[in-house]
Amino acid sequence: MILAEIITIGDELLIGQVIDTNSAWMGQKLNEIGIKVKQITSISDDKMHILTTLEEAKKRADVILITGGLGPTKDDITKKTLCDYFGSELVFHEPSFKVIEEIFNSRGRTITETNRLQAYVPANCEVLVNKNGTAPGMWFNDGKKIIVSMPGVPNEMKGLMETLVIPQLKSKFNLAPIVHKTILTQGIGESFLSDLIEKWELALPVYMKLAYLPSAGTVRLRITASGKDADVLRKEVESQTEELKKLIPEYIFGYETDQLESLIGELLVQKNKTLSTAESCTGGFIAHKITSVPGSSRYYMGSVLPYSNDLKTGLLKVDPELIAKHGAVSQEVVTQMAELARKMLKTDYAIATSGIAGPSGGSDLKPVGTVWIGIAGPEKTKAWKVQLGSNRLRVITETALHALNGLRKELLATK
Amino acid sequence: MILAEIITIGDELLIGQVIDTNSAWMGQKLNEIGIKVKQITSISDDKMHILTTLEEAKKRADVILITGGLGPTKDDITKKTLCDYFGSELVFHEPSFKVIEEIFNSRGRTITETNRLQAYVPANCEVLVNKNGTAPGMWFNDGKKIIVSMPGVPNEMKGLMETLVIPQLKSKFNLAPIVHKTILTQGIGESFLSDLIEKWELALPVYMKLAYLPSAGTVRLRITASGKDADVLRKEVESQTEELKKLIPEYIFGYETDQLESLIGELLVQKNKTLSTAESCTGGFIAHKITSVPGSSRYYMGSVLPYSNDLKTGLLKVDPELIAKHGAVSQEVVTQMAELARKMLKTDYAIATSGIAGPSGGSDLKPVGTVWIGIAGPEKTKAWKVQLGSNRLRVITETALHALNGLRKELLATK
Repeated sequence: MILAEIITIGDELLIGQVIDTNSAWMGQKLNEIGIKVKQITSISDDKMHILTTLEEAKKRADVILITGGLGPTKDDITKKTLCDYFGSELVFHEPSFKVIEEIFNSRGRTITETNRLQAYVPANCEVLVNKNGTAPGMWFNDGKKIIVSMPGVPNEMKGLMETLVIPQLKSKFNLAPIVHKTILTQGIGESFLSDLIEKWELALPVYMKLAYLPSAGTVRLRITASGKDADVLRKEVESQTEELKKLIPEYIFGYETDQLESLIGELLVQKNKTLSTAESCTGGFIAHKITSVPGSSRYYMGSVLPYSNDLKTGLLKVDPELIAKHGAVSQEVVTQMAELARKMLKTDYAIATSGIAGPSGGSDLKPVGTVWIGIAGPEKTKAWKVQLGSNRLRVITETALHALNGLRKELLATK
Repeated sequence: MILAEIITIGDELLIGQVIDTNSAWMGQKLNEIGIKVKQITSISDDKMHILTTLEEAKKRADVILITGGLGPTKDDITKKTLCDYFGSELVFHEPSFKVIEEIFNSRGRTITETNRLQAYVPANCEVLVNKNGTAPGMWFNDGKKIIVSMPGVPNEMKGLMETLVIPQLKSKFNLAPIVHKTILTQGIGESFLSDLIEKWELALPVYMKLAYLPSAGTVRLRITASGKDADVLRKEVESQTEELKKLIPEYIFGYETDQLESLIGELLVQKNKTLSTAESCTGGFIAHKITSVPGSSRYYMGSVLPYSNDLKTGLLKVDPELIAKHGAVSQEVVTQMAELARKMLKTDYAIATSGIAGPSGGSDLKPVGTVWIGIAGPEKTKAWKVQLGSNRLRVITETALHALNGLRKELLATK
């Protein structure tokens, strides 16, 4: 079995100013290709400590992935330390400088000498061009061991891992095939899900493993199968997935890296329909999710966000009597909000939300976390209530997932 | 200087199923009392690996804090391993069993033999009674070194740290004070900042260190000072901060954990002013930031989000000729958007954005990442352009920071 170690460098990790999320992500990616992480070590920007940690890691592992300490400032010393370790020297790397130039040009800024120094790399490394930032990654072959140094900025590290490091590790080692399938669910908690699929899970063959990966409002189910023939494994995983779909059809919304906002975008384009929103308690978060998808301007027209009751009646023209009678957080008001937004913004569909995001503002009848969601469409308006606990950001996030998944189901049900 | 190491035990950390948030929290707490974390190590539930990691840590540090591997299942072996390490034996600990009994009774469950075993602890340790869970903590005096083992469940570990471990460490060691100050900047990149403050940084006294902590759109500067007298250090850090403020007054927006959306909220409440938004390219993200602050409904009224040009003219009533002449991404249009939103939503201030978030839609004159921001206030409207690269989410995030900081400056400048 190929073993890896992860070394993360930076004082900010040790004093707890930054949580090390990189290691978990890298651990997942390595695990997916059948490389086992033996140890994760976080140390400070200290030359001697970096060197001894590297030596220790080399005794235990075949692959050592290092992140951090590659910034342009004086306290970032990883590159220099690795260069000294290999007795190499820093040389100018033109393609990396090109990237730095592009980044600075696109921002209309001038490159300083400090930035230019980032394009220097140890002569003995294979440079991993970093398209998302100014610090290049470095791949060193050290006898039979592999040492890779990457920036600590998460999206830069992820870009290098996905496009270069993982593919190169796969081709370098003769790794036993591992097949993964991730099934995405929304609207059900981990323990309820586990009860619903218990029999199926217990009947999985020994070479298949199931992992529950919950995060605010969704639970991902990851099937991992290992064996000798990738094609056979893939077929078996697919057939198990089909069985699972029969058990929880209403909760599955996608697979792998699917995102609800992209899925509804595809459906809207496919059906040539447009969308608008009228958010109250979610305060623009649904609009943000929708517009985070490139090209969303093709189907998303915009939003009215009447956060105050005055704007609900004054701007969106909700009937004041309806609010007086049922309260702003009600089926009646959210239904009217969706229908008015659909009409005012001239779209085929409109999503509306009204709820109590907290932490205060709840009552016995409508406790914090009570949210009404409405979806108005060409044929009808649907409205439903969800109860989402008392954490403000979770209420906002989970409402968005419920609303987007509600729209997805609505679009699928319509011809 | 007293040095500590943190060892976190559990396969779930290495395969990336769980992000290690415990270490950052512990690092903060240790740092606050002047104990420096030298290394954080995550390893699996493996006896030999636990023992060698412990030996290595003891060579470097005075205090070793271990979390995890104390659950009731077979794969949790930390307690047994530590007991063997000290050549001790497991003995029944009545007070810990009382806690286990209470927990099970309160849940209406019966205690199994497996649960009872959790009340056994090595005879040579000082038991740290865990009021939040079934696994007791353990404090070992090992010559001059201290080894503490705690459960990995965050609230159990935190309870033990706050009530027992931190107070005992403080009384055990004669700790030198450490003072931190974090200065938050926006609107300038790490390398430019570093160039601007280079002389100041180089002239810092040897007992002060500066760290750059960049994250999308902001750079935090952290000064760390260690010495003998906390009051003296605090004064010296403050005086250095004053010097720094003179160098980059326009970039500093706050300190420690300040957030722009909270700062503008406080200013608006203080000045009894209201706010609305008219976002185009940021697609609701600014509204989301503002409304993520509890109590924001006091000053934030809502938004019109005219994502399409049709809605810019149809809903917000932007002059179509203005768009035809200057384009939607222009000073003229964003100025009018801000002024119209202020009027239509009846607020004292309004923020407007219009830009090309990308990844496509740019031109030579207005490349992807070109964004106009407008702020309309009671006295005047301000509009300015920023150039933010080609990553869609970064353009959105950084525009929000620019806009919120712009409003903050505007509010500060107005009486």
